[in-house]
Amino acid sequence: MTDSSENEKNQVIGELLVQALEREDIDAFRTEFMELHPYDQAKVYSGLNADIRSKVYLYLSPEEMAGLFENIEIDEDEYQNLLGEMDPAYVAEMLSHMYADDAADVLNELDKNQAVSYLTIMDDEAAQDIKDLLRYEEYTAGSIMTTEFIAISAKQTVRSAMHILKKEAPQAETIYYIYVVDDERKLVGVISLRDLIIADDESMISDVMFDRVVAVSVSEDQEEVARTMKDYNFLAVPVVDFQERLIGIITVDDIMDVMDEEASDDYSKLAGVSDMDRVDKNPFAAARKRLPWLVILLFLGMMTASLIGRFEETLSQKAILAVFIPLIAGMAGNTGTQALAVAVRGIATGDLEEENKWKLLLREAGTGLITGATCGVLVIFIVYFWQHDLVLGLMVGVSIFATLIVATLAGSLVPLFMHKLKIDPAVASGPFITTINDIISILIYFGMATLFMSYLS
Amino acid sequence: MTDSSENEKNQVIGELLVQALEREDIDAFRTEFMELHPYDQAKVYSGLNADIRSKVYLYLSPEEMAGLFENIEIDEDEYQNLLGEMDPAYVAEMLSHMYADDAADVLNELDKNQAVSYLTIMDDEAAQDIKDLLRYEEYTAGSIMTTEFIAISAKQTVRSAMHILKKEAPQAETIYYIYVVDDERKLVGVISLRDLIIADDESMISDVMFDRVVAVSVSEDQEEVARTMKDYNFLAVPVVDFQERLIGIITVDDIMDVMDEEASDDYSKLAGVSDMDRVDKNPFAAARKRLPWLVILLFLGMMTASLIGRFEETLSQKAILAVFIPLIAGMAGNTGTQALAVAVRGIATGDLEEENKWKLLLREAGTGLITGATCGVLVIFIVYFWQHDLVLGLMVGVSIFATLIVATLAGSLVPLFMHKLKIDPAVASGPFITTINDIISILIYFGMATLFMSYLS
Repeated sequence: MTDSSENEKNQVIGELLVQALEREDIDAFRTEFMELHPYDQAKVYSGLNADIRSKVYLYLSPEEMAGLFENIEIDEDEYQNLLGEMDPAYVAEMLSHMYADDAADVLNELDKNQAVSYLTIMDDEAAQDIKDLLRYEEYTAGSIMTTEFIAISAKQTVRSAMHILKKEAPQAETIYYIYVVDDERKLVGVISLRDLIIADDESMISDVMFDRVVAVSVSEDQEEVARTMKDYNFLAVPVVDFQERLIGIITVDDIMDVMDEEASDDYSKLAGVSDMDRVDKNPFAAARKRLPWLVILLFLGMMTASLIGRFEETLSQKAILAVFIPLIAGMAGNTGTQALAVAVRGIATGDLEEENKWKLLLREAGTGLITGATCGVLVIFIVYFWQHDLVLGLMVGVSIFATLIVATLAGSLVPLFMHKLKIDPAVASGPFITTINDIISILIYFGMATLFMSYLS
Repeated sequence: MTDSSENEKNQVIGELLVQALEREDIDAFRTEFMELHPYDQAKVYSGLNADIRSKVYLYLSPEEMAGLFENIEIDEDEYQNLLGEMDPAYVAEMLSHMYADDAADVLNELDKNQAVSYLTIMDDEAAQDIKDLLRYEEYTAGSIMTTEFIAISAKQTVRSAMHILKKEAPQAETIYYIYVVDDERKLVGVISLRDLIIADDESMISDVMFDRVVAVSVSEDQEEVARTMKDYNFLAVPVVDFQERLIGIITVDDIMDVMDEEASDDYSKLAGVSDMDRVDKNPFAAARKRLPWLVILLFLGMMTASLIGRFEETLSQKAILAVFIPLIAGMAGNTGTQALAVAVRGIATGDLEEENKWKLLLREAGTGLITGATCGVLVIFIVYFWQHDLVLGLMVGVSIFATLIVATLAGSLVPLFMHKLKIDPAVASGPFITTINDIISILIYFGMATLFMSYLS
């Protein structure tokens, strides 16, 4: 069944399940529900209204609920509500059945007291695993890794490794890569399950493993980890501490979430929405996310206005000058945003390394020169044929030419500079660069106007 | 070894390899080179200068070169050069050793005659697989799927399935999901290698497989496929034709590329760069990608200018009016881009479904009302204290208020409308919405000015 028929089917099943819950018919509910993929279970569950939903956990084991919660996609502030509907001891047991990284993600969304209280009633080993993960800073490899991996010694046969694998498979988050460590738990190799299956049963692991294993450091940025994973086509990547000891793995499903999150993040910053605003929020929540930017931009816009205010005298003599203000400011903003986007994506995808930063600036200066010359000449013609005033045309055209060069350079300089200062270059969002370029363009334009003033007809 | 030490190490190895190539020392070259991960091999290879690079293929088997080319990341126009350096028969054999989807990707970048000539000298079976894939339209599931999957019948034991698996493992692109089909090749189930390993050897596949298998249709958009894969945490997803027959699979490594591509694409469209412009291109290539947008915007900007031109009389009486034009147009552009970003991301992530489109518009109207009121009141105060002119303050403030409501609505209406027309909503890029909102805001502002004119001091 394909995606859209899938959706309809899920809706029908959803209704069946609601009816079963209303009748309190455990068997009917479980028969249907347990047939669903955990992602679909989570979708049905989170879509129920609160009083029916609060019955669901009574019909499911903590382990079954753990599978559902590993796949749930809800807003951060809803975890508190959902968990609050269940018995605390049940929640603690559910959390201990979840993969440690997913459980840590859930606890991160709760208020601190509640998280601590679940950890207290949880069984000690599981609680320790989760606590270890909660220590790591957000957006680092440590914060998204899990500790449920399979590590073996190199000094054994493929047969005995397969034996370990079968035993540990139910607990491990992935069994498709097996990591090889030495006596000090230092990472020395990796072998994929695929190679293990193809290999001769009596071969030694040390002979069949790949020993130039690529790992990431626990403190590495999650975006870097995603890039490594994508470049090498890995299904999982090992995480090592500062002594090169294996302490966790990051699986590809978590990396897909990271890629999605980072893409939304960069996108919304370019648009000047601090933090992604979801379509299902109410207008107050949406306005709260957008107003900070709008108010900053309002004040910056007032600066631009006061700058133009200084030329009020000039403007009242030549009102036609005002006509081209939005054109010039708009072109400056657009070209700056284009240059910004290229630099920010270059930094994000790793294409832009230290040695080619100067090359980029030089390139952008050249690009500004070409686009500026093209648009400048076009403008001279258009203004001349429209206003029959060559001096005005030249003035606007030369302004466009100069503005495009400077604005293009500004668009690439700002993110490079932010990156140098270890600030996320995506913060240098579109609206910010647009305002800077508004000011630059107006200074250039009125500078030109002052020069040309006496020649204007 | 972690990522940064990895980089240094690769550089040292790269130099060793270049020296070996210069000495034509095959053994030294192969010893080092074959130790590298194919991604690193590809990086070293594509970084060499042409005359040294053209020797590399003489030292590697077509099969080894196939692994390298499956991992290469180069510009589309470079494939032609790289393949041109090698013997055509060698290239054809290399392509036949690549996974069919990767080989099809390479052929897609060549000019048609060259692609056909490679397919002609290639062995028939491999050529047929690749030709089948080349038929599918770009950006569909068919265009990114591969035909090298493992499909078995439900009527056998786990033991015999494992046997098939071991035999087919070297050819299959993934062995971690085994798909179950009926006599008509219709997809009836799936079992992961993990479950197969845990299962009892004598169990029947029909008893242990998962029979509510999620599949995508061959014509489905690649972005939808990525979403399904991310939601369900799949490592691979089966692709079916219109008779529900299994014809291919899509693996997670290809989906990571899709996610990256779509993110870059949306991002650059928001910034008004048609198609992503990479940091390593020359200024002419960069300018060619940006100029179409800039020229369109230049003409739209001229429309705005001619609109303001109609108020030249008003402006020459009250030059102060010109001072606030960039502020109002800028605020309209910003708020529109914010609303646009939320709608485009909502559509891209699937959060925005048919039933909540009206809800979104209502929400955006509310958001515009709140942000408009806040900014409007702020502006009244600022302008009053700056210019000591209450009427001017009221006029600018009310314009901001009205503009923000209309511009926010426009920002969400445009992408929704495009989506309705089956146009990629990301095309409604930032600069486009900004220009529309420039025009709206200027009409509102001068409309107000005309109303208030006689009261201005």
